[in-house]
Amino acid sequence: MSGNTFGKIFTLTSFGESHGEAIGGIIDGCPAGLKIDLDFIQSELDHRKPGQSHIVTQRKEADKVEFLSGIFNDTTMGTPIGFMIRNTNQRSKDYDHNVEAYRPSHADYTYDAKYGMRDHRGGGRSSARETAARVVAGAIAKLILKEKGITIHAYTSQVGDIKLLKNYKDLDLTKIESNIVRCPDELIAETMIQKIEQVRKAGDTIGGVIACVIRGVPAGIGEPVFDKLHADLGKAMLSINAVKGFEYGSGFEGTKMLGSQHNDAFYFDEQVKTSSNRSGGIQGGISNGEDIYLNVAFKPVATIMQEQSTVDASGKEGTIHGKGRHDPCVLPRAVPIVEAMAAMVIVDHMFRSKNNKM
Amino acid sequence: MSGNTFGKIFTLTSFGESHGEAIGGIIDGCPAGLKIDLDFIQSELDHRKPGQSHIVTQRKEADKVEFLSGIFNDTTMGTPIGFMIRNTNQRSKDYDHNVEAYRPSHADYTYDAKYGMRDHRGGGRSSARETAARVVAGAIAKLILKEKGITIHAYTSQVGDIKLLKNYKDLDLTKIESNIVRCPDELIAETMIQKIEQVRKAGDTIGGVIACVIRGVPAGIGEPVFDKLHADLGKAMLSINAVKGFEYGSGFEGTKMLGSQHNDAFYFDEQVKTSSNRSGGIQGGISNGEDIYLNVAFKPVATIMQEQSTVDASGKEGTIHGKGRHDPCVLPRAVPIVEAMAAMVIVDHMFRSKNNKM
Amino acid sequence: MSGNTFGKIFTLTSFGESHGEAIGGIIDGCPAGLKIDLDFIQSELDHRKPGQSHIVTQRKEADKVEFLSGIFNDTTMGTPIGFMIRNTNQRSKDYDHNVEAYRPSHADYTYDAKYGMRDHRGGGRSSARETAARVVAGAIAKLILKEKGITIHAYTSQVGDIKLLKNYKDLDLTKIESNIVRCPDELIAETMIQKIEQVRKAGDTIGGVIACVIRGVPAGIGEPVFDKLHADLGKAMLSINAVKGFEYGSGFEGTKMLGSQHNDAFYFDEQVKTSSNRSGGIQGGISNGEDIYLNVAFKPVATIMQEQSTVDASGKEGTIHGKGRHDPCVLPRAVPIVEAMAAMVIVDHMFRSKNNKM
Amino acid sequence: MSGNTFGKIFTLTSFGESHGEAIGGIIDGCPAGLKIDLDFIQSELDHRKPGQSHIVTQRKEADKVEFLSGIFNDTTMGTPIGFMIRNTNQRSKDYDHNVEAYRPSHADYTYDAKYGMRDHRGGGRSSARETAARVVAGAIAKLILKEKGITIHAYTSQVGDIKLLKNYKDLDLTKIESNIVRCPDELIAETMIQKIEQVRKAGDTIGGVIACVIRGVPAGIGEPVFDKLHADLGKAMLSINAVKGFEYGSGFEGTKMLGSQHNDAFYFDEQVKTSSNRSGGIQGGISNGEDIYLNVAFKPVATIMQEQSTVDASGKEGTIHGKGRHDPCVLPRAVPIVEAMAAMVIVDHMFRSKNNKM
Repeated sequence: MSGNTFGKIFTLTSFGESHGEAIGGIIDGCPAGLKIDLDFIQSELDHRKPGQSHIVTQRKEADKVEFLSGIFNDTTMGTPIGFMIRNTNQRSKDYDHNVEAYRPSHADYTYDAKYGMRDHRGGGRSSARETAARVVAGAIAKLILKEKGITIHAYTSQVGDIKLLKNYKDLDLTKIESNIVRCPDELIAETMIQKIEQVRKAGDTIGGVIACVIRGVPAGIGEPVFDKLHADLGKAMLSINAVKGFEYGSGFEGTKMLGSQHNDAFYFDEQVKTSSNRSGGIQGGISNGEDIYLNVAFKPVATIMQEQSTVDASGKEGTIHGKGRHDPCVLPRAVPIVEAMAAMVIVDHMFRSKNNKM
Repeated sequence: MSGNTFGKIFTLTSFGESHGEAIGGIIDGCPAGLKIDLDFIQSELDHRKPGQSHIVTQRKEADKVEFLSGIFNDTTMGTPIGFMIRNTNQRSKDYDHNVEAYRPSHADYTYDAKYGMRDHRGGGRSSARETAARVVAGAIAKLILKEKGITIHAYTSQVGDIKLLKNYKDLDLTKIESNIVRCPDELIAETMIQKIEQVRKAGDTIGGVIACVIRGVPAGIGEPVFDKLHADLGKAMLSINAVKGFEYGSGFEGTKMLGSQHNDAFYFDEQVKTSSNRSGGIQGGISNGEDIYLNVAFKPVATIMQEQSTVDASGKEGTIHGKGRHDPCVLPRAVPIVEAMAAMVIVDHMFRSKNNKM
Repeated sequence: MSGNTFGKIFTLTSFGESHGEAIGGIIDGCPAGLKIDLDFIQSELDHRKPGQSHIVTQRKEADKVEFLSGIFNDTTMGTPIGFMIRNTNQRSKDYDHNVEAYRPSHADYTYDAKYGMRDHRGGGRSSARETAARVVAGAIAKLILKEKGITIHAYTSQVGDIKLLKNYKDLDLTKIESNIVRCPDELIAETMIQKIEQVRKAGDTIGGVIACVIRGVPAGIGEPVFDKLHADLGKAMLSINAVKGFEYGSGFEGTKMLGSQHNDAFYFDEQVKTSSNRSGGIQGGISNGEDIYLNVAFKPVATIMQEQSTVDASGKEGTIHGKGRHDPCVLPRAVPIVEAMAAMVIVDHMFRSKNNKM
Repeated sequence: MSGNTFGKIFTLTSFGESHGEAIGGIIDGCPAGLKIDLDFIQSELDHRKPGQSHIVTQRKEADKVEFLSGIFNDTTMGTPIGFMIRNTNQRSKDYDHNVEAYRPSHADYTYDAKYGMRDHRGGGRSSARETAARVVAGAIAKLILKEKGITIHAYTSQVGDIKLLKNYKDLDLTKIESNIVRCPDELIAETMIQKIEQVRKAGDTIGGVIACVIRGVPAGIGEPVFDKLHADLGKAMLSINAVKGFEYGSGFEGTKMLGSQHNDAFYFDEQVKTSSNRSGGIQGGISNGEDIYLNVAFKPVATIMQEQSTVDASGKEGTIHGKGRHDPCVLPRAVPIVEAMAAMVIVDHMFRSKNNKM
């Protein structure tokens, strides 16, 4: 009920505050016999970790994952996979000024309203540090998907008003990791990076959009009513910190179209295919074998190095000024998180689909 | 696992194909002692039902709900509320041409891929007729919310490229039901209606956007990690037929902003408030007491009265031409569905929040 | 949360009060392509229904099940199976004396304590009439198990102090339906029937034990920790009205044994087998391929045709005297319910086991 | 689905193999503001830990729990409570002889059948070491119950054929911890201890029964159909290693009674009460305010220091002889586990009952 578990068959239950002992989780429902590539898992975490480039927060955290159970001789046993990441770089003093004042557009006030208290050290459970557990579970999901020939690529497609207009089909997705903003178009990437640097120098932050493409999902995955495949992908993405919107296939643009423009005609070429893909690979909540693609909207990070009006828990009005080491733009580090959530949803639904037919 | 249950404490489990005996559901988790206003529930259904105006499908369905349990002397007993709506207007012959050909951008092919079969009579379970069960459960949720002083208003804010640019705060939401397209601005409504008529005459269909405003939710509702309040609202909306996108608060527009422009400053006036509301009433997944508002993107209806290329189950290519009585635009009838889903999410999360504190 | 859903993949959500419009349910998670034998389902219901012999309640209820969805051309479609049984014989007046007085060892007082109200017409939701929905879902589960070669046989093994001492292996389980008490030993059956008649004439009731044998479950079904196969079987049985205890394999008798007496030695004969079966076919919560067998303890029916002390909702003390038509012994009609619950648990766990290995 | 989560609102998800890095879990759904008494939690663990007396296994394990999240300044924050216990005494070599041979009445064969592999080091996940996580979660549940005035006492009531015949009401439950077998009757306790010593010397093991009494649960807790309070208690107990049976109230003995003997008459003394309590404090699945009491049957431990026939994974027959340090009788160390499971069930159902009424 408290919502710290994600998924139905392949599940992640996560724990941890940003400045407590550790964060971590339990992955349940991973089949026995999966080979675990620990280097791959760590590399996924490294894509998310702070301090990886000059356009993200300069906090230094090792983010070394320690597996506690479920894996024996580098192979899963079918039992729950417990893991944790120790919190090592906890400059809690940076947050002393937060003890009373509510940081605007953060979760300080709502945690107090809900729980009657909060961990004021760096956001506690509301910190995006929690997403490291998602990346670990997502990495294991990716290992499963790899065996099925399914790939997931997310990339930064917009920073502020700098937008990559090319369709994902016209991009070289192997180039995503070739730059620090994780945009596969080199020129746009450079402009985005400059924009983020400029914003950072001004003590400000900026939002953007991450696109994600999932290839190789066979037709027939997803449930037809409440748990439509895109509904679960949407929930997965909207559960990531700072996300304000989700669309798949034609998305919000598709609302302006006529049915005769929007429909995807079927044809046959070894299997049933569609000549266009405004459906985004999902029809009636179930995959149709085409590419699944989606967009995730991120607001600008709430912590800015500027003076802002606020109140404290007693209702006293005052001002607050950001301290500590924060991201001017969350997008580069959110790319692996989007991929992780997508991977978990696809694996979960593939497992759920095992009992479709007698 | 098959995903025909929505919610965790206040739940709807639904059943029914469009051309079977009946559709219906079971509402579980409704507290004892709620007065049931049967006329209100029926009026909510009437907002969704076919044939209510000339811009929606001309099928005539009574959509009379019959309650089978859980209510005694017009009061809930705390036991599950079973209900059904008989299917009375089943012109299955209209669908004979669908037995083999897959209708483009429908769920015919994906159902076949998933189940190895499908009910070809009018969409079966993939028909939007399924949403009538949601409206019944949503109406009961609204009765609960009414006792808490919480209101929900959804309205058509865009049809094709005709867009209502006014903020919801500048609209008179009591006017939503004053026209058949359910847009509170009379002038825009008239333009939308003309657009839909024009599209219908061309045998075509058109998409659009529904906005929804939820007022009166106290601060502290929602779970902080995977089950963020807006993530569950997003999933709820994305599970409605034809929905392609969801955003709340600043949404996709917010991605273009700087943190200094986007943050909502706190002030105090009897309670903690924000001077702007780009957060959309939710911070860190938990309500902050401000209005919750969101947008839902609908694609154009897939059934068009035009010739389209397709294939059949054997892979043979051919053409298909829409028959039967279909909606040229799903928006007017989707307004009560959006409200129903929102109501269920809010009630469920209010009930989940009962154990926040000792 | 309200607990009207049973199972995780193959699920039954049930509704209905004994004297409301109808009882029924929704079966979700039944795969597509299962042939439905309606006569078989009705015959299962007939084994549970009142009035079937002179040793059970003489109420006459048709208990005709009506399927509302999920089945097309006598085949499941993978969509939820909605069904209902109209309540036709509702002599509510028999229960007028219950409006205020709490019937001893019934759920009248606890419902009032929980919900602040209750449906006093014949027990409402606490009536064993609710179990008819379980029999319908169990019958469909049995059709699935039949295709896997799995059989379930329950029988009355004890009535009061009349106990069938033979092991199930020494009984002819095809004889269960050959007498009205459903005990496969003709002589013991006759004694049991005489005992029940004698008790009924005295206006009293009597308890007993039902044994259940499940054959053909392959090794490897069940989850190893909280959802052990026998734990879910236990919960299933304990959820049946009037059940006070559950044991499997060596059960309570096994507590008196030494390990050297109790252990089941392994041997090999085409597959791994055990030379004894005190484990009851389950080791570590997982089936080992041997017969699963269990016992379910039923208390005597609470409604007796005798004067009893009680209080009413206001706390006023008084007496109550049973009226209406009630079972002197619940065992004969509970046999199909025990089988139904066992069938649902086995199917659910078989479906859950699909993702054990890569 | 893999069943490593227990509970619905107050939940424990556990992980860990007996000879892996650590065991532990995540407690979700604990309200904010609960004072955590770490000494109490550790003392509960000490009641379960090996080596505490000469009648239990002589393995030495520190079983020191480390909390990783969810607690700040000795107070819960409403966020998930992650914890772990390092495995420190892993004499894996004791288990080398198990690599191939299946230990009789253990879960070796069924794990292989289910997962295609197993962790042969001391039982892995099937080891009772897993129950330490339950004791931690149970201790936190007890802290919640303490604030509500609810107490739970479990004790050894039978070892082999040595049975404590006194009713719990005639026992001094404060004496449970006064002896190493945890039986509140000193004389019977001494006989039980001698019996266990005798069995241990013979290289054998012995079963028994644990009784449990729960006092102070208010009327109205529990769900009326599938999730009856006693059904969830039963499942909880049956999920403990080596448990073969469960009964509550009159249990299996009640099956021999007449309704006129069994029914509990109501009377009024400040509140509704019953003059006898064969219902065991639960009627229709819902607590009635009387004491809840139950019995749990444990088989003899499977590991014996004697030669037994078995087969290995290839089907080759042979013999096996127990090694390592094992319990001759599981009862003394299982007492805190029974209490822990009972505590979790009661807390979970109290939380579930918050939405019974409007």
